[in-house]
Amino acid sequence: MSRYDHTKYRPFPPVQLKDRQWPDQVINKAPIWCSVDLRDGNQALVDPMTVEQKKRLFQLLVKIGFKQIEVGFPAASQPDFDFVRALIEENMIPDDVTVQVLTQAREHLIDRTIEALQGVRKAIVHVYNSTSTVQREQVFRMSREEIIEIAVSGVRMVKERVAKHPATDWRLEYSPESFTGTELDFAVEICDAVVKEWQPTPEKKIILNLPATVEMSTPNVFADQIEWFCRHIAQRDCIEISLHTHNDRGCAVAAAELGIMAGADRVEGTLMGNGERTGNMDVITMAMNLYSQGVDPELYLADAQEIVEVVEACTQIPVNPRHPWVGELVYTAFSGSHQDAIKKSLSQQKPEQGWNVAYLPIDPQDLGRTYEAVIRINSQSGKGGVAYVLEADYGLKLPRWLQVEFARVVQARTEAEARELKRQEIWDAFDQTYLSNPMLAELVSYKLERSDRDYLTAVIRQQGRSGELQGEGKGALHALTEALKQVLDQEIQITEYSEHALSTGSDAKAVTYIQLKVGEQVCCGVAISEDTVAANLNAVLAAVSPTLATVETQAA
Amino acid sequence: MSRYDHTKYRPFPPVQLKDRQWPDQVINKAPIWCSVDLRDGNQALVDPMTVEQKKRLFQLLVKIGFKQIEVGFPAASQPDFDFVRALIEENMIPDDVTVQVLTQAREHLIDRTIEALQGVRKAIVHVYNSTSTVQREQVFRMSREEIIEIAVSGVRMVKERVAKHPATDWRLEYSPESFTGTELDFAVEICDAVVKEWQPTPEKKIILNLPATVEMSTPNVFADQIEWFCRHIAQRDCIEISLHTHNDRGCAVAAAELGIMAGADRVEGTLMGNGERTGNMDVITMAMNLYSQGVDPELYLADAQEIVEVVEACTQIPVNPRHPWVGELVYTAFSGSHQDAIKKSLSQQKPEQGWNVAYLPIDPQDLGRTYEAVIRINSQSGKGGVAYVLEADYGLKLPRWLQVEFARVVQARTEAEARELKRQEIWDAFDQTYLSNPMLAELVSYKLERSDRDYLTAVIRQQGRSGELQGEGKGALHALTEALKQVLDQEIQITEYSEHALSTGSDAKAVTYIQLKVGEQVCCGVAISEDTVAANLNAVLAAVSPTLATVETQAA
Repeated sequence: MSRYDHTKYRPFPPVQLKDRQWPDQVINKAPIWCSVDLRDGNQALVDPMTVEQKKRLFQLLVKIGFKQIEVGFPAASQPDFDFVRALIEENMIPDDVTVQVLTQAREHLIDRTIEALQGVRKAIVHVYNSTSTVQREQVFRMSREEIIEIAVSGVRMVKERVAKHPATDWRLEYSPESFTGTELDFAVEICDAVVKEWQPTPEKKIILNLPATVEMSTPNVFADQIEWFCRHIAQRDCIEISLHTHNDRGCAVAAAELGIMAGADRVEGTLMGNGERTGNMDVITMAMNLYSQGVDPELYLADAQEIVEVVEACTQIPVNPRHPWVGELVYTAFSGSHQDAIKKSLSQQKPEQGWNVAYLPIDPQDLGRTYEAVIRINSQSGKGGVAYVLEADYGLKLPRWLQVEFARVVQARTEAEARELKRQEIWDAFDQTYLSNPMLAELVSYKLERSDRDYLTAVIRQQGRSGELQGEGKGALHALTEALKQVLDQEIQITEYSEHALSTGSDAKAVTYIQLKVGEQVCCGVAISEDTVAANLNAVLAAVSPTLATVETQAA
Repeated sequence: MSRYDHTKYRPFPPVQLKDRQWPDQVINKAPIWCSVDLRDGNQALVDPMTVEQKKRLFQLLVKIGFKQIEVGFPAASQPDFDFVRALIEENMIPDDVTVQVLTQAREHLIDRTIEALQGVRKAIVHVYNSTSTVQREQVFRMSREEIIEIAVSGVRMVKERVAKHPATDWRLEYSPESFTGTELDFAVEICDAVVKEWQPTPEKKIILNLPATVEMSTPNVFADQIEWFCRHIAQRDCIEISLHTHNDRGCAVAAAELGIMAGADRVEGTLMGNGERTGNMDVITMAMNLYSQGVDPELYLADAQEIVEVVEACTQIPVNPRHPWVGELVYTAFSGSHQDAIKKSLSQQKPEQGWNVAYLPIDPQDLGRTYEAVIRINSQSGKGGVAYVLEADYGLKLPRWLQVEFARVVQARTEAEARELKRQEIWDAFDQTYLSNPMLAELVSYKLERSDRDYLTAVIRQQGRSGELQGEGKGALHALTEALKQVLDQEIQITEYSEHALSTGSDAKAVTYIQLKVGEQVCCGVAISEDTVAANLNAVLAAVSPTLATVETQAA
């Protein structure tokens, strides 16, 4: 029998906070960031990081710009202890970076923690104990008073011990672990007791970290919890409120954002959200969310590819191709209408008005991505994408009528092969269809004489056979179509025409796109030549080639 | 020079809605679900699905319980057209399932769409056009009136055409595409015009789908947009409001949840969030979020492993190990304190009180996961996890003092090898340390005579040598330690003792855990034997073995 049965779960009780203020807030500055990659992230890995991996990740975190980095739980793990010592003894901690270490509020662990930190310039000692109802009742079997005593005595021990090491600039962080599962009044009560014991000042604040150790509700309820807490905690001016959200319901970033709106000052999280179970709040996502709103994230994420590589190497967890902001596919459009809109709006950006492009919330180049990768072609793509590729990679500005025609060629191929076409394949298809088809007629030489009209004599070759054409008209194009009319014995009408230079400078080539009606038959031709006249003539020849191939041309 | 510069972006303007009601709402029933895996999901794949893959995914969606499934954009893609025909002609659509197809509001596309649907029992025609400021101004270069005319004339065309096919039960869905980038008053204006044209009734509602085509703000602002829209749209009783969120800011699930609280009725999304760029709203996550709150999700997700496998096979995108609810690692605890709390609270569950386990928001067995996988052991693990593994897999209920001792053995090994230990390796380490060490002394035979005291004669063997012990005391254990005192010429004191049956039935074995002080030396012994007496004696012998090995035993 299946155990799938929703009735065994209880809804999370909402917070009574009718006059909440957070929904009217807007985040207009970055929170204080603290990376917990090396602690919460590391402890959640199948194979925890080696010291070398930790050093590499630490250096990346410093480079990104984190000023607070939790580096381990040294009292619980010898590798963590050794790593903290290595950071200090090898002088790897920049002056403006504070390392943070986690410890439970127990005497021998606190002693070992302080031992690990000997000689550090600045440190945050992060003391926690579990305060949630389920932990109190089922795990510790203790009263509220006993749980408060664990916290307060732990803080007292830290206070006594750090006083013996005045050369270090010490701060305290206290977490009522499993805050989301803790009655709010009790969370405030235990935090008030901790604050009273530590005696912070507005100049030297205590950090109270409120973890969503397990994400238990919609993020608005978490924000209500934070606002309620901020309103009720004493000595608010001596406290930095910190958030530490997990992603059990897929809303860790939303919870942190709404929690900041609700009054928190600081956010703990990890790169790409690595961490226990579903992971921690993803700092990359939250920081880039701020960035995309014009807010300085105070983290430097431009080298996104390097960040992804280091995190993948250290965690052995591949970054999902749809990961916000940094995944492989997140700036890619396959859909024809999306491609078309991106192409059009990219061409109309005015820097002074701010970025405003359909389907691209930021300029992918900000994170080191190229436009080449933005538009990719499969059976879901339309003319816009195909046209974008030909223009971006080959400088061809296809007129709309030719986009429509060529998109059909491409779609037939993507549908038949049921796969994406590479950009080179798009070009190859264009080349084979319009430029290199072996049955195309081409100009060998021509003579153009202008008086009242233009007189054209052209030698052309098709499939190894040469021939001469003669015609007159207004301009070279007209003269050629008149000559062809006689050879083909059919009406020829130019229905679409456009041309542009294909490059700049003295070796500029010209490209002509032409659509003709030969009798009732619509034909297209494209030609790239040294000059516009040759391009025009070759385009016409290309367009009539199928008809011309059926006719004996005059012998040279 | 880096292009990384937040100043080129503009903040999203907040919605003026001081009296918003949604933050006080709680979701207590499932929304109407619509899967867009086969359309939005498919069009975002590097290699779109083949017909066989689409059929497999369609069957999975039906099995999960979706009653509305968007199956493609048949007018834009021949494979989509063919797939819709196959569903209809091969009679694959259950009576209670409605297929939905997307089309732009253009005549030839609408004609082709209706053609694709010939003979279907029930269908939703999903018409869209882009309404956002950037699309109107930069892509279409049209006025608001012109954009409304596209929508209204498209709806009129659909209305005229479906009237010719009365055998099908037709519904209309209209999307003001890029709703999040559309001025709210204009979104309402165009939707009002569409509703007026279609003439829905409370019995046969129109679906107005409000896409976060690009996620542009924090989810609370999206909820404000939805509540504003719901308040201002006319004929609300004739309308189902649908949400279709994307994940650009990593908050698509939060936006959908808050949007439902703000008054929406229906949610479009995909399995595991596959879709354009960062993906669509993940239906699995939102449904399981409801499930974990005691709300019937109206989707059957118990066969989570099958769902993951089919989605991976069809999308060729691997599911991240931290994916909420279904990822490989999301019910796994490596941290010692987490393992300890899980172990303790699992043992105290009372079904009538509802699920309440630390760190496990639901019972992993609901989704076909086993407890064996919950707790895994690496250098971050503590006694709780190690004890859990030995109990769950081997029935050994280690007393706390032995958990502490053995956890040190395991941690030294995980730290040295810098990797996870498999459960078999945990057992091997236990076995080698306590049970199979070749230097252990063991009982060959014994004789126990009881009168006022117990008189024990035991033949023991250690490293190939045998010897006899004789002692008397209160009980067999006491008699043995008295005998050993003489042999070792040291005080022996039993400091910890516990035992339990290792299995049930006639072949039950007994296990004894014992801690002794031999002189000042603390020693532990464990033994598994046919009966409790033998287990007790062997445990003592195991504990004293290191000391015994240094002493010449009396010849047999």
